[in-house]
Amino acid sequence: MAEKTDAQVNIGGKTYTLSGYESEEYLHKVADYLNGKIAGLRQDAEFARLTPDMRHLLLNLNIADDYFKEVAKNEELQALIDKKENDLYDIKHDLVAAQMKLQSADKGKKNGKQ
Amino acid sequence: MAEKTDAQVNIGGKTYTLSGYESEEYLHKVADYLNGKIAGLRQDAEFARLTPDMRHLLLNLNIADDYFKEVAKNEELQALIDKKENDLYDIKHDLVAAQMKLQSADKGKKNGKQ
Repeated sequence: MAEKTDAQVNIGGKTYTLSGYESEEYLHKVADYLNGKIAGLRQDAEFARLTPDMRHLLLNLNIADDYFKEVAKNEELQALIDKKENDLYDIKHDLVAAQMKLQSADKGKKNGKQ
Repeated sequence: MAEKTDAQVNIGGKTYTLSGYESEEYLHKVADYLNGKIAGLRQDAEFARLTPDMRHLLLNLNIADDYFKEVAKNEELQALIDKKENDLYDIKHDLVAAQMKLQSADKGKKNGKQ
């Protein structure tokens, strides 16, 4: 079984001990990401005037938005892979056809020489 | 300029009016996603015993984890696209080589006939 990792991280100005099966490096990466999001929201003076509830919601929406953007990017990349696979299929077909013609041309040449 | 959309959504049992440039459909999709995450966390009896602060943190970590998984998937897909592009490059090279051989074989045949 994988060992649990404990990592002390500072998120939004508070220190937490996170415990999980992820690496300490990953837990710090997630903490850095969340701090970046919180700092971004705090740049807007209106944010401080919101209720804690609304502030939590905005942070959640912000992270979820990043998640959905990545999901959309994934779909685009998958479509690109499908397109490239089709291109590869077509071009392999062309290559096989050219190679067969070449073989038959070679055969014709040999027969001609006999 | 795009028009702002207002959407009433229920997140974690509370109703909010979200305002943004995204479509109402998208705002509901994000709300559904967050509700799924909250429901998942609430299935663990320990979650209710945590402080509100820790509950918010866990939700944030959970969404951020989804985000990073998608980022990692994107990197894998991008590597796959790069590999397919290399394959396409190589096979195009083979095709051009075969076509050139074929052309020179055709030429040889024509010259032989003259």
